Parts: sequence; C-alpha cells; structure tokens
Amino acid sequence: MSALDRFSIVLVGTTHPGNIGAAARAMKTMGLTRLKLVNPAHFPSAEATARASGADDVLARCEVFDSLADALADVRWAVATTARDRELQWPQYTPRRFAEHSFAELPGVDVAVVFGRESSGLSNDELNLCNAALRIPANPQYSSLNLAMAVQLVAYELSQNAPTQAAPPASVDPLATQIELGRLNEHLLSVMAQVGYYDPERPKMLVKRLRRMLAKAGLTTSEVRILRGLLTAVSARNES
Amino acid sequence: MSALDRFSIVLVGTTHPGNIGAAARAMKTMGLTRLKLVNPAHFPSAEATARASGADDVLARCEVFDSLADALADVRWAVATTARDRELQWPQYTPRRFAEHSFAELPGVDVAVVFGRESSGLSNDELNLCNAALRIPANPQYSSLNLAMAVQLVAYELSQNAPTQAAPPASVDPLATQIELGRLNEHLLSVMAQVGYYDPERPKMLVKRLRRMLAKAGLTTSEVRILRGLLTAVSARNES
Repeated sequence: MSALDRFSIVLVGTTHPGNIGAAARAMKTMGLTRLKLVNPAHFPSAEATARASGADDVLARCEVFDSLADALADVRWAVATTARDRELQWPQYTPRRFAEHSFAELPGVDVAVVFGRESSGLSNDELNLCNAALRIPANPQYSSLNLAMAVQLVAYELSQNAPTQAAPPASVDPLATQIELGRLNEHLLSVMAQVGYYDPERPKMLVKRLRRMLAKAGLTTSEVRILRGLLTAVSARNES
Repeated sequence: MSALDRFSIVLVGTTHPGNIGAAARAMKTMGLTRLKLVNPAHFPSAEATARASGADDVLARCEVFDSLADALADVRWAVATTARDRELQWPQYTPRRFAEHSFAELPGVDVAVVFGRESSGLSNDELNLCNAALRIPANPQYSSLNLAMAVQLVAYELSQNAPTQAAPPASVDPLATQIELGRLNEHLLSVMAQVGYYDPERPKMLVKRLRRMLAKAGLTTSEVRILRGLLTAVSARNES
C-alpha cells in the first residue's frame, strides 16, 4: 500500500491510443497505477500497448467507463485539468499546489485527476462533475501540452510531494461522494422549483452556478445529510 | 528576452526522431527554445516534425553537432541527466534543485541540460564534459522515463522556478466578506427556524456545523447573493 494508491488518472474520450499507452508509462514511472478510461476511441490497442513499454500492467488493470459520472462514482475529490484560465469562480490549482493540497488537506481520500480529449478537452457538464480545476502553467504563446506529458507532470508532482511515512487515517467524516453531491443537487433543484425561486433572466446559468458551488464547497457526507434534512423540512412545509 | 533563453536542451545520439519532435514540443510549452542535437540517427525527419506539432519553429532553429564537446563549446554549465545513482562523487540535482540552483547561483549563465541515448544514455567521456548530474526521482521498480517526458519535466521545473513577472489580476467575483457570510448565516438560521428544521438531539451542534461549512466553502459575493435570494423565496412561500 503506497501513499499514491488512492490517486486515479481518468482519461476522457482519448482519440489516440498511443497517448493512453504513453500515459500509462508516465504514471508507472512515478508510482501511480490506477488508470480509468472514459469512452476511449480505440481500446485495447496494439499501439497503446507498444507505447506503454514496460507499463502494460497498468493498461491491463485499467477500468473502462461509459461516462465520467460513472468513473467518478466512488471518488470523493476530482480535479479537472484545463488549459484555459476561464474558470474564474472555481478553485484552481497548479500541479504542485494540487499535490500539496491532496496530501495536507485530503488525507486518505480517493482523488481523481481528470484529463479531457486531445482536441476539445472536457465538456461543461463534465467539468461540473469535478471539484476544482488543475491548470499546468505553460507558455502563454503555446500551451499545447501533449496529453501524456500532462499526465507525466501531474504524476511527478504527486510523487515528489508524497509523504514518506504512513498516511494519516481517513477522516471520520469523509468528503461526500459524487453520488451524494448529485442527489443533494437534485434535491436543491426540486425545492427551488417548489418555492418558485429562479433567476428570470438566466435560469440555466443559476442551475450551473449552484452545481459549481456545491462541487467546490468541500461538503462532507454528514454535511450533505444535514442540508438534505433542511431541504426536506422546507419541502414538507410547502406541501402542507 | 526571457529568463529561459539562456537554457539549452542537448539531445545526444537520439535514435527515434519522434522523440526529437516530442522534446521540441515539450520545450516550447514551457517557454524553452534552444535545442541542440548531437549525432541524431535521423534528422531532419517528417516524424520529428509531426510530433513537434506547433513547435516546428524550435526544430527549424535547432543546431546539429558532431560531438557533445562541440555542442557545449559556448556553454558555461552543463548537467547530464542520468537514470542511475552511480555518480556518487558528483554533485547530483533533482530537476527542482537544478532549477533553483540555476536561478539562484548561476544568474545569466548559459546552461545546458544534456540527455543521452534512449537505450544507453551517455558515455563516460560525455559525462565528463558535464559539471553535474541531474537525476529525475522515479519509481525504483520502473524508472524508464521516455526521453521527451524527461525533457518535459526538466523544462517544467525551469519554467516554474523562473523569476516571475507581474501578479495575476484580481478576480472579478471576489470571495464574500465576513459580513456577507454572517448575514447569510443569520438568514439561513431564520429560515431554519421558520420551517421547523432542527436536530432534536443537538441543535447547537447543528448551528456550529453550518457556520463551519459556510466558512470553508469559499463562497463568492455573487454566490452569497444567489443563496440569499433562494432563502428569501423559501421564506416568502412559508409566510403566504
């Protein structure tokens, strides 16, 4: 059991199988082993295996999912890698700060680092499943990092910052899972509809902003329970 | 003129032209532009250009030499990357320490980072032309970093440690003030009382936990406004 076992790398919609193999190799050089693929264009693939070099065991054990939501079902904290600086309202980490944060503030938590498609990155719906953004500082005139290179840099920072001693035990009140957060979000939306609360000028924007806010808030399982209790009370009052 | 212009990447005896292209791309993403090739097996090469993606300008301007001695003729400090720990008598840097050292102790000096052949690394004669060793910390069970990945990590550390320019601009939606958070908290408590929501076993604990949750959530001013709008809507419904 290594301090890095709780970290997974999630590749969404990867087009080039060579990148999957190169990512597996990059992971293994830094001691990461958990790879998840969401709708890869080609997998398994001889090219992926070739590029993985001696890291084909990482490929052999990887999991394949139909959606990012499925891949993150049992993950408690997910960062979305992004090349752009657009997510102003969202916590944004560099690879180093992300690694430091993971070991200092999220001990024992299952953490996922999500990488989007080579050409188009992650959709907004996919971004909204993540708790924060990770941006690799790059040349503003040419920030086009290869996918596997980005995996290498993140894996390197995790490896560099991993504690050498045993990890502290997981929190007694762990961060809520993505499933719990999704249910809270649904509950909140239903109560909002019930009480007639919406922004008449941009209702969709409001829904998105609430989801983003919940994702970044770092709610624990018991906090989600408290909030849902409150929503149930509000709802019951309005029905009676 | 950038703080990184004095750093060159030297690839010795590279076998696979794709690695030269990928190295050029890796360099450019981190703002490095000076590439030197010593006896490449194939160069120029269509595969190198393809893998360089938008960094073909780095390839176009690279210099090709017959020996490492020639490539280092005008270099004042050179580090040899090595996967092994064998050079015990030699100063040995991690990428981070190397970058810190270069900016703190070697200001304005032309520095080269030398990468050996994919299979066999650097000869002892080549190592002896260098001033120090640079070893990338890796998984002891699998330290087989791809050549271009190693270039990416070194370029990243140089870029990360380069003296910084102006600070980033302030966010357009700043974090909520303590006053705004306090008002949100009061508002939430009044609606909780109105709808009869409380934890019958430990009401004070609940109040404390909600306050803690709001404090850590990193809410912005506009998010506080949205939440208070929702609370007002809930409240109005219950009064009517």
